[in-house]
Amino acid sequence: METIVASSVRQVKIGPDHPFVIIGERINPTGRKKLATEMAAWDFERVRADALAQVEAGAQMLDVNAGIPLADEPALLSEAIRVVQTVVDVPLNIDSSVVAALEAGLSAYQGKPLVNSVTGEEERLELVLPLVKKYGAAVIGIANDETGISEDPAERFRIAKKIVERAESYGINREDVIIDPLAMPVGAVRLAGSTLFTIVRRVREELGVNTICGVSNISFGLPDRGTLNATFLAMAISAGMTCAITNPLEENIRRTVQAADVLRGVDDNCQAWLQAQRIGEGESERSEIRRRRRERQGRRA
Amino acid sequence: METIVASSVRQVKIGPDHPFVIIGERINPTGRKKLATEMAAWDFERVRADALAQVEAGAQMLDVNAGIPLADEPALLSEAIRVVQTVVDVPLNIDSSVVAALEAGLSAYQGKPLVNSVTGEEERLELVLPLVKKYGAAVIGIANDETGISEDPAERFRIAKKIVERAESYGINREDVIIDPLAMPVGAVRLAGSTLFTIVRRVREELGVNTICGVSNISFGLPDRGTLNATFLAMAISAGMTCAITNPLEENIRRTVQAADVLRGVDDNCQAWLQAQRIGEGESERSEIRRRRRERQGRRA
Repeated sequence: METIVASSVRQVKIGPDHPFVIIGERINPTGRKKLATEMAAWDFERVRADALAQVEAGAQMLDVNAGIPLADEPALLSEAIRVVQTVVDVPLNIDSSVVAALEAGLSAYQGKPLVNSVTGEEERLELVLPLVKKYGAAVIGIANDETGISEDPAERFRIAKKIVERAESYGINREDVIIDPLAMPVGAVRLAGSTLFTIVRRVREELGVNTICGVSNISFGLPDRGTLNATFLAMAISAGMTCAITNPLEENIRRTVQAADVLRGVDDNCQAWLQAQRIGEGESERSEIRRRRRERQGRRA
Repeated sequence: METIVASSVRQVKIGPDHPFVIIGERINPTGRKKLATEMAAWDFERVRADALAQVEAGAQMLDVNAGIPLADEPALLSEAIRVVQTVVDVPLNIDSSVVAALEAGLSAYQGKPLVNSVTGEEERLELVLPLVKKYGAAVIGIANDETGISEDPAERFRIAKKIVERAESYGINREDVIIDPLAMPVGAVRLAGSTLFTIVRRVREELGVNTICGVSNISFGLPDRGTLNATFLAMAISAGMTCAITNPLEENIRRTVQAADVLRGVDDNCQAWLQAQRIGEGESERSEIRRRRRERQGRRA
């Protein structure tokens, strides 16, 4: 079980024998007013900065979304993708609910991207899967359909299976489908966590494909979301999840993923773990030097 | 699958449908020189304080160990158990590698304790299991034998199975055996984590009994042990582990366990999670009031 995505120069392998893949979620104007205003005005400075910062923080892929009300989303999304591909070389996740925007994004993209997303709805399957096949992409399949999001893990698994089988019928390899079992807020749906873990495990064991999810929704409405998100991520990884759309700039997320790589035995000789520690110490050393310099300047003034 | 242990007044149920059980590890003179000196001098003040502090921090059980070189361990352990049972009402884990000390502890104990531990070694099985049966206790079975600790999860599972079956042959119910798959340091043994997760899952699915482990050994020799321990614990819980011998005074451990209860759906309406948050806020409020009072006094002085 291995999904391979690529930019024009770099491949990323997603699977249980590889380090967990963080897909940086920041390039998304939803809920980011400034970014939305700038993108709508064709200003991509912040998009560039967000791309660089997330990759520097350890994102192996980036999500790119240009969903701004009243904007020309196909044009915006394809331009955003072009811009991001000029500043970083990681593979991208082309994110839109508008099929024309997905197609514009796919035609602008250099390499083999991930498409975010298709659901189990008949209409979506028929529109999105041919595009995925045409451009040789991989695709995220979300486990809901016309009837909404079931609270029954067996029903969501059934939809996941349907998406994988339908993709194959369009000539897409099953390993190019990554299932999102959907993380509901556990404060509202008591079994949201255990349902997700169950689906992740079944998808891995019975369908043999990768799973993904957004991380922060699980803790919506509850206090100390940082601890809940990190614990959720560790538990989902233990159940078999291999990638997530999340914020690599949040240290607890980044560190949990690195620790899980060590604990799954995919961080050879704990090199990445030790390296991250040295960088962290270097940072605090540099900030300590800056602090002392400021103090000295303060005394002189 | 449910292990029930008890003091004279309180029952604790260990199992996948219950909140995760933290067994406080602090009452153990190994590596705690002051505690060892005091206990050897028959001074149990620190034992009392450690018992109260751990229960207040959320330990549902306490481990009691009196392994001090040259001391009369049976007498010390039974006295420590008497002392602890006068100050807290949680069930205890009677911890010794000396069979005579286990027997002395068992005869002093009020209720149904956990015995820590038996291994798969023939001699230990023959000495410890009859005691467990005689006193109606539950027992921790450690997955090693005369040949040492295997790196092969199948071999360790085989020993776990042998312990469960041997216990049954002595008339001990299988749900009164809790398997410790053994956490090795992942810095030395690359697959230490994934091996443990595999055994936990198999023991749960194939033997239908609970699993336990110590938490801190996994991160031995590596930097940022706090993050590794918390991530390991979350992953082990996701694989099916239901209790652990650890330090409830470490906030990251305590919070990870509480978050995992929420995510497994066993914290009804997230009550414990919200309650812990209120206590945390109350604490910081009280410390803020104290800080302001000190400031005012400072200004007056």
